Amino acid sequence: MHDITIHYSNMLSDKVGKEHGLSLNDLDSLQPVASNIHKLLRSKREKGELPFYDLPYQDVTEILNYAAYIKDRFENFVVLGIGGSALGTIALQTALNNSQYNLLSKSERNGCPRLFVADNIDPVQFAEMLSILDMDKTLFNVVTKSGTTAETMSQFMIVYDRIKKLKGDRWKENIVVTTDKAKGVLRKIAYELGLKSFIVPDGVGGRFSVFTPVGLLPAAVAGIDIKGLLKGAALMDERCREDSIIDNPAYLYASLLYLSDTKKGKKITVMIPYSYALKDISDWFRQLWAESLGKKYSLNGEVVNVGQTPVKALGVTDQHSQIQLYVEGPFDKVVTFLKVEEFKVRMGIPQNPPIPPLERGGKGGFEEISYLCGHSLNELINIERDGTEYALTKNNRPNCTIIFPELNPSTIGQVMYMLEVSTAFAGGLYNINPFDQPGVEEGKRFTIEALKRKTL
Amino acid sequence: MHDITIHYSNMLSDKVGKEHGLSLNDLDSLQPVASNIHKLLRSKREKGELPFYDLPYQDVTEILNYAAYIKDRFENFVVLGIGGSALGTIALQTALNNSQYNLLSKSERNGCPRLFVADNIDPVQFAEMLSILDMDKTLFNVVTKSGTTAETMSQFMIVYDRIKKLKGDRWKENIVVTTDKAKGVLRKIAYELGLKSFIVPDGVGGRFSVFTPVGLLPAAVAGIDIKGLLKGAALMDERCREDSIIDNPAYLYASLLYLSDTKKGKKITVMIPYSYALKDISDWFRQLWAESLGKKYSLNGEVVNVGQTPVKALGVTDQHSQIQLYVEGPFDKVVTFLKVEEFKVRMGIPQNPPIPPLERGGKGGFEEISYLCGHSLNELINIERDGTEYALTKNNRPNCTIIFPELNPSTIGQVMYMLEVSTAFAGGLYNINPFDQPGVEEGKRFTIEALKRKTL
Repeated sequence: MHDITIHYSNMLSDKVGKEHGLSLNDLDSLQPVASNIHKLLRSKREKGELPFYDLPYQDVTEILNYAAYIKDRFENFVVLGIGGSALGTIALQTALNNSQYNLLSKSERNGCPRLFVADNIDPVQFAEMLSILDMDKTLFNVVTKSGTTAETMSQFMIVYDRIKKLKGDRWKENIVVTTDKAKGVLRKIAYELGLKSFIVPDGVGGRFSVFTPVGLLPAAVAGIDIKGLLKGAALMDERCREDSIIDNPAYLYASLLYLSDTKKGKKITVMIPYSYALKDISDWFRQLWAESLGKKYSLNGEVVNVGQTPVKALGVTDQHSQIQLYVEGPFDKVVTFLKVEEFKVRMGIPQNPPIPPLERGGKGGFEEISYLCGHSLNELINIERDGTEYALTKNNRPNCTIIFPELNPSTIGQVMYMLEVSTAFAGGLYNINPFDQPGVEEGKRFTIEALKRKTL
Repeated sequence: MHDITIHYSNMLSDKVGKEHGLSLNDLDSLQPVASNIHKLLRSKREKGELPFYDLPYQDVTEILNYAAYIKDRFENFVVLGIGGSALGTIALQTALNNSQYNLLSKSERNGCPRLFVADNIDPVQFAEMLSILDMDKTLFNVVTKSGTTAETMSQFMIVYDRIKKLKGDRWKENIVVTTDKAKGVLRKIAYELGLKSFIVPDGVGGRFSVFTPVGLLPAAVAGIDIKGLLKGAALMDERCREDSIIDNPAYLYASLLYLSDTKKGKKITVMIPYSYALKDISDWFRQLWAESLGKKYSLNGEVVNVGQTPVKALGVTDQHSQIQLYVEGPFDKVVTFLKVEEFKVRMGIPQNPPIPPLERGGKGGFEEISYLCGHSLNELINIERDGTEYALTKNNRPNCTIIFPELNPSTIGQVMYMLEVSTAFAGGLYNINPFDQPGVEEGKRFTIEALKRKTL
């Protein structure tokens, strides 16, 4: 079995009490609504209105060829992108590459370039990043679906200016663009100047774009097996063709969170991976869930102000930061653990500590840590997770666990595809449009107007 | 003026409406309670029961001498610590050092070692970190107040075992311990084996320990001006000697959050720095606020289950992830911006984009980004913050701003000291003990029992 699975018994009232736990009846009652949403989503998919569903089946030859072509030509690959143009890339990199990737030697990176993701416009941070890069040996991937994103286009113009001063018209060799196939000024620039470019398919929004060149190109450049990733996504697509809440993992997960929010007042959903590699999956999901479901208006135009607040946490680190609040604070949270069964490395704790215990001729006083000796970090991390699950459940805090048999391109593809389908489905449950983001327009207009007014 | 300041007019009802905003009367009514808490805190401080207050006035000569001594001897400095033993160090490093610090050359680091903070026990991540370190040239700082923390002591034993195999009894050269002066097995080991050690003062808990050797030693090793940091903390201490909620910035900030929670139902407090450097101050504060105030029992022994949930965010990045939810979702949040007035580098956006506009003989179509040209990332980041503040306020979402004239050791010392005092004071407002963490004990006992039961 190499499928991810969801364990949700700790969401139920017999584990966490009636006040906070769901009944199987709550799930059953949702099935008719779920079946309707399922029909609607299938019909939209068939009409080509939800193209994110079919991304697992795309041809990635051009991406792989281009990644191979640039491998020896560049030392650094820098993504200029923000939000949905960055979070998927960061999540894939953290999940599937060495945690010290940029500090490895080129041969330890299998010849792949270093990877940077510039997803902010802090002037100091951006200057510091540029100052460590040999510009001639750096390829910049400008990623914006609309082709007009203020932050990304500003970064692009700064980088263009610097490389042009260095190389003249050959600056174009150091830029690759990922944007809409027709719309936006970045596409226009790419077309007029003949820049290498990739396409973000029509109808795929930023937060659903990890399986387009937005996420796949940087992943391939960093040596990640993108075909394996898409195979995992396709596996999950097969499992998501059921309309049954219980059998369809994406619908199950969405239903658990939705019911916890609307029936039990759990306005906060915490995702806590017990694996460093999964840390940024939780950050990627935070955008997906928040921006898709945090909405003022329902599809009927009523003011609803809905949306669970997703919180990213990390086990075991945040046991020493957040668990006190989760166990003893308000009953306003539902917790999702991400658990890895087999880590790819075993890290044993030695049998013999620095001071030998009494019975081996030492001076004693060593009892406080002797229970650790001979075990491994692998055991410790998962037993601590069990302990946290136990403490939450005992204190009537609903929680569920997504289990990964191991971490590999397939299981990462599975979980990301599942969470995308969960989010689309949850849009139906909340009766809102999960694919727009009207609430960020006000701030954008403010910025444009303020800059236009400001004298240079 | 080099003091940080708090702007809070957008917390008030004339800006965000009566349902969500506070009245000046709400603040006035809290003053008698505040004055009592103030008296209690002062009296405890005078009796030496709250030693974190006096840390700004310590002598740091030994720390500075030791940092100078190891500077040329080691290439890497690795903190083994978790929670309060790691978060302050990470916050200081991100705030006051180059964002690419570990990728700089030794001379660019002014001869200081690289800095790693191993604050998790993921076996893969820990193995990957160790594998890039020349162990002989690496100094490990084992940081645990209790001297028994399972995660840290496991890491310590693994590292001890590896260095011992390499260097025999000279393994001790590569370890420096920061722990209690008398209690715990780590102190015993340090004493019996003659390891170099620093002391976490009595009565200073992990999350209040950034101004002890826990935070100061790694900071000094990485070249941070720790005297400047403490001077900033001392400056803030002076400003926190008032009992007036309006004049004492720590009390003001705590009161704003407390009243928003208890009077207006803002169960979530978001801290969003518009500065990459301040990113981990918000993570450090997340532990401080959550673990101190998330409590089941009041001081009278009543079940209260209190505690706001702190959320870390980052501007402008999270505008493309979380702002949709904050602007349109449930009215359950209060937002704190951190704003930097002067960044130490200016990053200008060029006057001339890749395609010249029509009037300069180009093909046009460039209007979508022309408003950016000639401005700077410095302007853009702060105007985007203004835009987000505007959008939140217009949608009746209370928010306040902590303003940093610039980022330097003094202003960082000021804000961290202020937030510690805010947290101690908020403990009084919520009538709970902000200095314990009983809710994490259950999980810890579970872990110990489970490992003891498990056969090797």
